Amino acid sequence: MKQSQLFTKIRREAPADEESKNAELLIRAGFVHKEAAGVYSLLPLGLRVREKIENIIREEMNALGGQEVHLSTLQDKALWEKTGRWSDASVDNWFKTKYKTGGEAGLSFTHEEPLTAIMTNHISSHKDLPVYVYQFQTKFRNELRAKSGLLRGREFLMKDLYSFCHNKDEHEKFYKRAQEAYRNIFKRAGIGHLTYLVCASGGVFSEFSHEFQTLLPVGEDVVFLCKNCNMGVNKEIIEKVKKCPECDGSLGEGQNAVEVGNIFPLGTRFSEPLDLNYRDEKGIKKLVFMGSYGIGLERLMAVIVEAFSDDRGIIWPENVAPFKIHLLVLSGGDSPASEEAEELYKKLETAGIEVLFDDRAVSAGEKFAEADLLGIPYRIVISEKSLTAGGVEIKKRTEKESKIVKISEVQNYV
Amino acid sequence: MKQSQLFTKIRREAPADEESKNAELLIRAGFVHKEAAGVYSLLPLGLRVREKIENIIREEMNALGGQEVHLSTLQDKALWEKTGRWSDASVDNWFKTKYKTGGEAGLSFTHEEPLTAIMTNHISSHKDLPVYVYQFQTKFRNELRAKSGLLRGREFLMKDLYSFCHNKDEHEKFYKRAQEAYRNIFKRAGIGHLTYLVCASGGVFSEFSHEFQTLLPVGEDVVFLCKNCNMGVNKEIIEKVKKCPECDGSLGEGQNAVEVGNIFPLGTRFSEPLDLNYRDEKGIKKLVFMGSYGIGLERLMAVIVEAFSDDRGIIWPENVAPFKIHLLVLSGGDSPASEEAEELYKKLETAGIEVLFDDRAVSAGEKFAEADLLGIPYRIVISEKSLTAGGVEIKKRTEKESKIVKISEVQNYV
Repeated sequence: MKQSQLFTKIRREAPADEESKNAELLIRAGFVHKEAAGVYSLLPLGLRVREKIENIIREEMNALGGQEVHLSTLQDKALWEKTGRWSDASVDNWFKTKYKTGGEAGLSFTHEEPLTAIMTNHISSHKDLPVYVYQFQTKFRNELRAKSGLLRGREFLMKDLYSFCHNKDEHEKFYKRAQEAYRNIFKRAGIGHLTYLVCASGGVFSEFSHEFQTLLPVGEDVVFLCKNCNMGVNKEIIEKVKKCPECDGSLGEGQNAVEVGNIFPLGTRFSEPLDLNYRDEKGIKKLVFMGSYGIGLERLMAVIVEAFSDDRGIIWPENVAPFKIHLLVLSGGDSPASEEAEELYKKLETAGIEVLFDDRAVSAGEKFAEADLLGIPYRIVISEKSLTAGGVEIKKRTEKESKIVKISEVQNYV
Repeated sequence: MKQSQLFTKIRREAPADEESKNAELLIRAGFVHKEAAGVYSLLPLGLRVREKIENIIREEMNALGGQEVHLSTLQDKALWEKTGRWSDASVDNWFKTKYKTGGEAGLSFTHEEPLTAIMTNHISSHKDLPVYVYQFQTKFRNELRAKSGLLRGREFLMKDLYSFCHNKDEHEKFYKRAQEAYRNIFKRAGIGHLTYLVCASGGVFSEFSHEFQTLLPVGEDVVFLCKNCNMGVNKEIIEKVKKCPECDGSLGEGQNAVEVGNIFPLGTRFSEPLDLNYRDEKGIKKLVFMGSYGIGLERLMAVIVEAFSDDRGIIWPENVAPFKIHLLVLSGGDSPASEEAEELYKKLETAGIEVLFDDRAVSAGEKFAEADLLGIPYRIVISEKSLTAGGVEIKKRTEKESKIVKISEVQNYV
């Protein structure tokens, strides 16, 4: 894409009420727009990043055998009353609204209830199990605090997967496979080395759940990592679990972390009140054993920004970057550099490589500063100087020094 | 995909309270689930259809030079007060909700206000125009009536494009291009021959707007088509416009139709109260001239179902069908037919052709009935009988008789 066509402009300053680094950088660089506290709109560059993350997750969910759906935002009160989760006493972050025709609706903060109800139409025999269903759908959380930028949104896209198994044994095997899929996701998104599987409170569902926690100073959670293996324990259960639940090893010091994924054994918590059961081989009626598996996409985007940035801007890992290459031309008009840049841009696009081409008539200093702020992995500069030196200057966003590379070699280099 | 893996099952009956053909067929065939009146969730087959429609629209929007964004659902009251569209007196189908921290939010029924506000950060000079921005985002409409199935949803995905131009002349040129893009979309979705551009009331924005109306008996609108050209007039303005506004030709009888797209010249209706302006070449401040362009995706899906079905089920046009081929094998186990079917399935999948493979152990009658209900364009049957006759039986959903085609010829045939 040509940067002269991109409608978003760099902003010198983020909104005054924005305290978090992730939101400040994402707003200044034109990835997102702040609508209200905890409510962000995605502009073209931000949407590209979220779609990269979404595609990584979708590939891993499909590899697990997941089937994609898209459930409604408006939630039927009667359904949530059956599970005891309609009242504000049991769920304190509902957004609710009213139909003009009378009656209330909730805005989905999760989707266990509606999906369990749907599955009663499709599961009746043991032959219908196991089944795994997922979606990418907006979640609404009426948070009292919303001051960590995109780390804690009131409205955000979530991937939520739900598993429906014959029994606990089968569930536990899938649960392990889901953990592996989650590790792949965080690895592919560039935060694998900072992210740990952590044992946490199961809430109302079960004794324990599992979280994927990314070590970050800004994190509101505290985790204690095992000194022997790569497991950890959330502070909320440290009194109950004083050793590593995986290998019984001793735990290190508490460290701040952000929860980037959460997986729950649900058991029959929802299948029982909503009557989701099946007949086994002998014709005996049994309750379906469920699990749920969530990842917030904007939070993951924000974690990546918090983890990878410097005082000049964002440093996107390649798999989630809005473009792979930022091509800057430092002279305009019909200059040889300008012509070479146009040609290289077309060549890379034809090869299916995503390029943001800064073809604007602005100063070299401004282009360099914006490139650093946007954080695209490869910066390629074409100028009269680079051509004289034998080609283009290529620099990774993570590197300090650029190299001269022949134009014909660019594709091999990146 | 193997049908034995697909979690949705055919239902013998739609919910008793569902009167419309589109919802009845889509629910029975397992494409959608009804959550509440006017609120539907998309199951795997339904999501596949919507994604096909979404991709067609996205291609046409990108070809217009549109840049994709994703704006929030939660809407800031202050912004809509500036344009006079917050009160229920001016907009009667708002869903509203409350923040736990105090204050109200609206659920987006459209996005002129937030996008216009965003653009004030990115448009300041005449060089920043024209610009076209679009999204696929859920819209919420608190309808008093919701009894036409997916034709009139309370929650649905909308593609909304907004144009920002220097002036009316430039706007009108783009408006014509957008009309052509819309014609392409409806043509590609299979309803081009039933769909007409119709002049309608401009509402509060302008004297006239334009609608794309698909002729259907179930339609709630009435349109009068020109006898000379392919334009029409909506009944709501027939008293004002008695002749064809395009060619002055006389108009035919009123016909029922469903609005599948709507395009509005907005002028400065939003740029004025929200202060979206630019400096022209001479440095003079001018208001941006806007337009908006909407298509409801589930409505389009429902229109296709209303237009193309028979007493046995849906008949999807190829471009929006959930799969291209429905492969049915009529004998199980290690039979030659079963082995040939597995092989053909793999071959077609490898060739990138989308196949739903009915590998289930159910009767031939059940498989045929379900295939007709699901409405996939090509039905291919492999059985001992077809193999003896020289290959597979191929039948289009629109045809009555099947043909025997050699297995090696299947790919060329479809």
